[in-house]
Amino acid sequence: MDILVTFDENYIPPFKTMLKSLMINNPKQNTTFWLIHDGIKETQLQNLIDFCLSYGAKFEHICISKNYFDDAKITKRYPQSMYYRLLAPLILPETLNKILYLDPDILIINKLDSLWKTEFPEGKFYAAASHAIVGNITSSINKIRLDTDHSYFNTGVILMNLTKARKIVDADEIIKTVNKSRDIELILPDQDIFNTMYGKYTLEIPDELYNYDARFYPAYLLNSANKHDLDWIISNTCILHFCGKKKPWLSQGYNIFTSLYKYFMYK
Amino acid sequence: MDILVTFDENYIPPFKTMLKSLMINNPKQNTTFWLIHDGIKETQLQNLIDFCLSYGAKFEHICISKNYFDDAKITKRYPQSMYYRLLAPLILPETLNKILYLDPDILIINKLDSLWKTEFPEGKFYAAASHAIVGNITSSINKIRLDTDHSYFNTGVILMNLTKARKIVDADEIIKTVNKSRDIELILPDQDIFNTMYGKYTLEIPDELYNYDARFYPAYLLNSANKHDLDWIISNTCILHFCGKKKPWLSQGYNIFTSLYKYFMYK
Repeated sequence: MDILVTFDENYIPPFKTMLKSLMINNPKQNTTFWLIHDGIKETQLQNLIDFCLSYGAKFEHICISKNYFDDAKITKRYPQSMYYRLLAPLILPETLNKILYLDPDILIINKLDSLWKTEFPEGKFYAAASHAIVGNITSSINKIRLDTDHSYFNTGVILMNLTKARKIVDADEIIKTVNKSRDIELILPDQDIFNTMYGKYTLEIPDELYNYDARFYPAYLLNSANKHDLDWIISNTCILHFCGKKKPWLSQGYNIFTSLYKYFMYK
Repeated sequence: MDILVTFDENYIPPFKTMLKSLMINNPKQNTTFWLIHDGIKETQLQNLIDFCLSYGAKFEHICISKNYFDDAKITKRYPQSMYYRLLAPLILPETLNKILYLDPDILIINKLDSLWKTEFPEGKFYAAASHAIVGNITSSINKIRLDTDHSYFNTGVILMNLTKARKIVDADEIIKTVNKSRDIELILPDQDIFNTMYGKYTLEIPDELYNYDARFYPAYLLNSANKHDLDWIISNTCILHFCGKKKPWLSQGYNIFTSLYKYFMYK
């Protein structure tokens, strides 16, 4: 299994938590983590290689020296590195046919096999989930806002069919769109761009399995007529996503999954 | 490390959760689980042997055929098997010098080495924690109620120095006290008896480390001037005890540790 991550140095600690949870709950896999970054220090990279090795995983990194996104919306919360997932099909080696992009604010609590084996229908090369039902921005508002007719996808988890993506994804188009975006009202810069450019090429996968928004347990429970209770989630959900500003590693308030997060964090 | 458990068939599922959490967080130990019971079926016992083996632990069982406690308070919540911990020093083989008794409604989330290596001062042969600060029955009420001058100990976790205990613990005295107890107002039958008979021989150990009452996160936080927050607990506490009637395996309401419990339950 190949996992793609794109973060700056601030996100190394949560990445390590994510990696531990992935490897502990998906042992005996041939797993490689691919990091696309723009200047993480050599000592930190070596530390990441060793850390991955200690969990039986490989670590590869690709440094982007060129500054593609000079004019883009870049803040502490939205660093340049977040746009690299858009360019991934063009940056990653041609030998890779498939990769699973994961945000670092994630916990893997079950086997990823079912997600990894997802079949892409004709015309689709990404697979992602929508938080429409439980999210605080409804799908219909986003459809109007971005003028699209598909679901509004969360880009924290994207399964990428790289072979198919390479035929469509165009670097110049991405760079132009990202740089142009500073003039437009974007709520979540990279996610809005992903949805506008690639929403139509994206297969929708169930968020309650592959991108569960950990803030909204009561909403998931209600929307599933009590089916998706804690027992169901812990035995079925693969990916818990700690979306939003309040991050569990910063001790900023608790939700029902915080103790589980901290367990992997301190393990 | 030797672990003592005493349960009936109803408690096999939570015992398995406890065992998983113990073995996962205390790997590479030479661990044996000792079960004292009064009639768990042969097929169930074989299943428990296999289950322990799959986690690298040994399983030994001692069946009590004699009905010691005919007249004792026995209900579904308080089965006869709960009294076996009182007789443990006399029932367990003489070759064992030390054992850690654990209730099955427990999660082990860190290494038990510090507890296991506890030194017993002169005159003490048990080590247990009190829930006085956070519990719903205060220590002072229990002292008056049971006419003792020591802490009221929770008997969910007891480290036993068997060599020392064998010199004091007397089977006839236990049986007489337990059988007599049906005439007295006991709130928690076995725990009251333990405290009355052996409280004075018991070394107090910190509950926030070795017998954390999972119902009372806010009380622990308050009583520690915010020191014992979730980060502290997850990195320091060895034993989380899911006390009280609402058990996490029965989906009866949630506390801050329920997701962690369910993770080990379904693992």
